[in-house]
Amino acid sequence: MELTLSQLAVRFGCELVGDPDKVVSSLGSLEGAGPESITFLSNPKFKVHLPGTRAGAVLLAAGDAADCPVAALICDNPYTVYARVAQYLRPARQVVPGIHASAVVEKDASVSPTAEVAALSFVGAGARIGERVYIGPGCVVETGASIDDDTRLVGRVYVGERVIIGKRCILHPGCVLGADGFGIAPGGADGWVKVPQLGSVRVGNDVEIGANTTVDRGALEDTVLEDDVRLDNQIMIAHNVHVGAHTAMAGSVKVSGSTHIGRNCLIAGDAGFSGHISVADRVTITARTFVNHSIHEEGSVYSGALPMDEAGNWRRNSARFRQLDKLAKTVKRLDRAAGKREEEKP
Amino acid sequence: MELTLSQLAVRFGCELVGDPDKVVSSLGSLEGAGPESITFLSNPKFKVHLPGTRAGAVLLAAGDAADCPVAALICDNPYTVYARVAQYLRPARQVVPGIHASAVVEKDASVSPTAEVAALSFVGAGARIGERVYIGPGCVVETGASIDDDTRLVGRVYVGERVIIGKRCILHPGCVLGADGFGIAPGGADGWVKVPQLGSVRVGNDVEIGANTTVDRGALEDTVLEDDVRLDNQIMIAHNVHVGAHTAMAGSVKVSGSTHIGRNCLIAGDAGFSGHISVADRVTITARTFVNHSIHEEGSVYSGALPMDEAGNWRRNSARFRQLDKLAKTVKRLDRAAGKREEEKP
Amino acid sequence: MELTLSQLAVRFGCELVGDPDKVVSSLGSLEGAGPESITFLSNPKFKVHLPGTRAGAVLLAAGDAADCPVAALICDNPYTVYARVAQYLRPARQVVPGIHASAVVEKDASVSPTAEVAALSFVGAGARIGERVYIGPGCVVETGASIDDDTRLVGRVYVGERVIIGKRCILHPGCVLGADGFGIAPGGADGWVKVPQLGSVRVGNDVEIGANTTVDRGALEDTVLEDDVRLDNQIMIAHNVHVGAHTAMAGSVKVSGSTHIGRNCLIAGDAGFSGHISVADRVTITARTFVNHSIHEEGSVYSGALPMDEAGNWRRNSARFRQLDKLAKTVKRLDRAAGKREEEKP
Repeated sequence: MELTLSQLAVRFGCELVGDPDKVVSSLGSLEGAGPESITFLSNPKFKVHLPGTRAGAVLLAAGDAADCPVAALICDNPYTVYARVAQYLRPARQVVPGIHASAVVEKDASVSPTAEVAALSFVGAGARIGERVYIGPGCVVETGASIDDDTRLVGRVYVGERVIIGKRCILHPGCVLGADGFGIAPGGADGWVKVPQLGSVRVGNDVEIGANTTVDRGALEDTVLEDDVRLDNQIMIAHNVHVGAHTAMAGSVKVSGSTHIGRNCLIAGDAGFSGHISVADRVTITARTFVNHSIHEEGSVYSGALPMDEAGNWRRNSARFRQLDKLAKTVKRLDRAAGKREEEKP
Repeated sequence: MELTLSQLAVRFGCELVGDPDKVVSSLGSLEGAGPESITFLSNPKFKVHLPGTRAGAVLLAAGDAADCPVAALICDNPYTVYARVAQYLRPARQVVPGIHASAVVEKDASVSPTAEVAALSFVGAGARIGERVYIGPGCVVETGASIDDDTRLVGRVYVGERVIIGKRCILHPGCVLGADGFGIAPGGADGWVKVPQLGSVRVGNDVEIGANTTVDRGALEDTVLEDDVRLDNQIMIAHNVHVGAHTAMAGSVKVSGSTHIGRNCLIAGDAGFSGHISVADRVTITARTFVNHSIHEEGSVYSGALPMDEAGNWRRNSARFRQLDKLAKTVKRLDRAAGKREEEKP
Repeated sequence: MELTLSQLAVRFGCELVGDPDKVVSSLGSLEGAGPESITFLSNPKFKVHLPGTRAGAVLLAAGDAADCPVAALICDNPYTVYARVAQYLRPARQVVPGIHASAVVEKDASVSPTAEVAALSFVGAGARIGERVYIGPGCVVETGASIDDDTRLVGRVYVGERVIIGKRCILHPGCVLGADGFGIAPGGADGWVKVPQLGSVRVGNDVEIGANTTVDRGALEDTVLEDDVRLDNQIMIAHNVHVGAHTAMAGSVKVSGSTHIGRNCLIAGDAGFSGHISVADRVTITARTFVNHSIHEEGSVYSGALPMDEAGNWRRNSARFRQLDKLAKTVKRLDRAAGKREEEKP
């Protein structure tokens, strides 16, 4: 793929400052891009690299255009436009319809003739594979699961029984959808009694699920990821969780059972959620926060991670943490005594 | 499967208040169940849904029976009885004996004729697969591993060389038993020297292991999970760890090497354990606690996670954490001075 | 394999105190080893077991030799020498050249005739498999990936498109190299726009990658693990991260995007790194620390995990944490007042 800058400006709605006939065919960083590449400036932190860029053109906001030594493509959200340009110049691998000879597709599975089932993949009885779906190598799609049009299972993905996945989703290697939720009841002398997990997982459209992320099936009702949910790697979604549309979670987030997270939330890495709580729409959770109770206010921001310190300082301060309640009581007493002295002053 | 309420009461030891001939065939939540379903009330928090339930029957404690608008099945532990009823009404998929044509079973592996090896699974030389074992699609059972009767590898499970797994276990997709422990010795200019991991993993009976959980093989002796240990997803059990019978761990718990955890412990999500420590029986660890030293008292409860706060508050308070030792010293000094003043009072 | 103690002393550069003709053939712990085994004493904590050992010989430092009841092999770093002896006595499984009949190797992949591709593995178009490489059962090596000589993919490993892996690496089951990094741009009413991840992953020589660890491909440039990096299980390396040579990370460490970690660092379990920061060489990070800013000083040590406490104490102290800023202000005020009183003293 290649485009002239004028084609690019028209297609992606940018204002061009520079040679309209210049051709770009690849993508690069502000520092690394050569003249055949288009790049972008979004984070102000990287503006220092703008004067020295050798890129063919830079996607940037109007305010940065004056400092651009090469062709500028001015737009409101350069990062988003960059993403769209990159999708255009580097389209995802085309689906090659057909079932590889080494794949195993059970008799009554329904696989669209426009879908591709790659080598050594398994599609179970009654499963339904939609139009232009890509099932990469080594995937397992169990009995009765359903994968809707244009979804891609990159490779070695596991989709459990009866799990339902929407259109245009991307599932990365090692993710597991529809393993049993963790349901155990105390059985006295017999030890634990397993609680059968009878629900399933429902995934909306345009959802992306990262490598080695797990989304468990519900105990009775379904675990739900609404449209356009974006999950990074190694995330743990427990049974009966509900994640609202457009919510994004960075790596290693853990959501305990039956928790309901709103729409358009931003959850930073390694945050954790207690079970049976509810989080409003547009909430931001910063990295490594333990969300231990419900959040009712839309758009609020919560934190919970202590910043590190040099080890010796840390040791001294964290030892004091164990005395914090005592310390607070002493301060209260001293404060009360000081107040009394003030009153008694002649 | 279906049962009359009288059959159910007899089989599961409940007292029935309601029509003995009513038939139930499925399971549901207090809110969602219809008249063909049985449900349960265990958590008092859900009691608000009892008066409005449309279920066929509710498993509940004697004290809640008066408020039940439909048939009541009175028992001591409704959640446990529910689990047993659910197992009865929704039995796990039957094993279909045989080895799928696409599976690879090496010549001297021993697979019981009552076991099922599903599509695209591998069973290595000298491995032993017991009676009615289910090896789901895409599993790897390495050389010399042993899987005892009635155990289920749901799919895409990895069982390493010589790993020994007991009866009636359930291993969920993506779990890895018997990868090498993390053993490296400093080799000076040569960099790290790998320490061969010569032990194995031994898993007792009735153990459940969650999706993408990893249990490493021991360095010299074995890593051990005793009977009825229950592990949720994405748990990390390092080499030479020993987990006592009936201990349950929620998702993302990490146990460092050579740590010994007692029997009947309850470990909440994302807790972490230092290496080479020992935890007594019946200990409870709350969510996200860092267990940094041994716990000797049976039945004790330990915590270690800070509750989150609104981001601005959090920033102010956590900045003060870095001054905590200094703060404590100032308080001590002020307190001493105040004491002196008291003494000096005329 | 077996060796006399004199052969062992010569080969591994130890001083022998004991019978040079005694033969050892296996390895054991100080407590568990029998007379046919060699063991080691490194951690002083285990010295209590030395007088009672029944091992054939003990690798130990000169200062411990006097207390050794059996043959002693004196050396400077007993644990490292033990590792080398163990590698010698228990060599890794030999590669058996050839491609298993059930494996799928695409036509233009290049597989060395000395390499082994085990059952049910997939090697994509244009991939290159070097000399004596072992591709264990159930692995996926995607299009254009390259695996250099003597590297071992233990089983069920996923190597993404164009990923480059050096010599003598070990990749454990369930690890995923080269899944897409987590790149999403806000697209307004359209929801998230995926940012194509066009970089790859480059792994140096002698790297070990643990079970279910994920290393994402870069957005534009590559994610890099330099030579002799050692990663334990369930580690998350985000896109564009760079890890310097000889750095070791214990289980469940998370490194956010574009972070640069130096050489010879030691990162303990469950530590997390913010994105876009830089960590100097030889830095030590203790367990569960959140590295939220760059570390410039080589060899420094940082911490950030609060030690647990009995649950009641914890509750009281952590409740006070929410008042810490207020508390600090009160103390400041009291301190100021006390200072003033001192000045006013007659």
